[in-house]
Amino acid sequence: MTIPERAVILLSGGLDSATVLAIARSRGFACHALSVDYGQRHRVELEAACRVAQRLGVAAHKILRLDLSEIGGSALTDRQLAVPEAPTEGIPVTYVPARNTLMLALALGWAEVLQAHDIFIGVNAVDYSGYPDCRPAFIEAFGRLAQLATRAGVEGQRFTIHAPLIELSKAQIIAMGAKLGVDYGLTVSCYQADESGRACGRCDACRFRAAGFAQAGIPDPTRYRG
Amino acid sequence: MTIPERAVILLSGGLDSATVLAIARSRGFACHALSVDYGQRHRVELEAACRVAQRLGVAAHKILRLDLSEIGGSALTDRQLAVPEAPTEGIPVTYVPARNTLMLALALGWAEVLQAHDIFIGVNAVDYSGYPDCRPAFIEAFGRLAQLATRAGVEGQRFTIHAPLIELSKAQIIAMGAKLGVDYGLTVSCYQADESGRACGRCDACRFRAAGFAQAGIPDPTRYRG
Repeated sequence: MTIPERAVILLSGGLDSATVLAIARSRGFACHALSVDYGQRHRVELEAACRVAQRLGVAAHKILRLDLSEIGGSALTDRQLAVPEAPTEGIPVTYVPARNTLMLALALGWAEVLQAHDIFIGVNAVDYSGYPDCRPAFIEAFGRLAQLATRAGVEGQRFTIHAPLIELSKAQIIAMGAKLGVDYGLTVSCYQADESGRACGRCDACRFRAAGFAQAGIPDPTRYRG
Repeated sequence: MTIPERAVILLSGGLDSATVLAIARSRGFACHALSVDYGQRHRVELEAACRVAQRLGVAAHKILRLDLSEIGGSALTDRQLAVPEAPTEGIPVTYVPARNTLMLALALGWAEVLQAHDIFIGVNAVDYSGYPDCRPAFIEAFGRLAQLATRAGVEGQRFTIHAPLIELSKAQIIAMGAKLGVDYGLTVSCYQADESGRACGRCDACRFRAAGFAQAGIPDPTRYRG
């Protein structure tokens, strides 16, 4: 019996990251899930992350706390800013400044300690809000940085940033996850879910998710409020 | 009267970052100092950061909390690992996995919210411990990432990562800071300073610092214990 390679998987508790966790598991990695309590409005997604991690059987699940509401600048971290309930022009106000750079930096630090070479992130550049840090050029640039930023990297260790969903439509993501046994009823995507995890049905995240289930022809298990 | 440009300055409370703050101030920036309470062994440096920020007159000083002892892997965040008191081979155990990537990511997020284009960091690649994330190639890679990671960056806003000390010796840094009026008696560099900020005199940080004052021919204001 060979010891499985470790990987760090960024797990928000949403649909995309749950799918990524299932993908990493299907590739034989010992999955170390990392969630970040960054003061997000939709904190109930952290409970979803715990449920998903438990159901999919991770080697470890760590939740780090970093209060980005101290920095603000996003509707997800500043309660004074409303979450848009209709499509907006350009990059929407739900963009969190430098969020994925921070997330990947935390994942990189933990990966180095774990002697893991692989980091998984559920960014997507097709049915998405247009966030800059979900695009291929960003992921490639972070990969180059990872080699220079770490002891392991400069000593010749390869780090690979896996973004297996980046070129997929939401429907393709859902179809892939369903095949891998992801229970999407455990996940929360809504930017303004209520305390019991029920979705608004109107924010960007809800609209992309609902359209994805419809296009995939898979029943949508999302619990909506009202 | 023109409104000064804002800049974010990473301020640890040590000698280097205090010098960088003085440099940024001398260039006319409205300085927004950012310190991170990351569970470092030498937390007294955060008190030093407050003193330095106050003395040099910053526009704002923010301290963010992010407990990297949850990740560990460094003598600075894991009390089970001893701080070396003599030179070691290679990158020493005081290296904190992905620390400067995290610090710069936090600075980048705040800079974007502040509409600041300039970030200052006191890394140094001459009289230093050999940390990978203090080298020019790392700083350049982060600069490229910053353009791709942010809304402002992809919309054409330039971000500049300033590392004005990176090619200087410790003696040159001290001479420059002294000329700019930095009171190094306020700063704490020691990796294992006691609660009142007194230095051990034996760790890497103490040895580089003491040699720097000696070479600069400037009296060393460091308070040593024992």
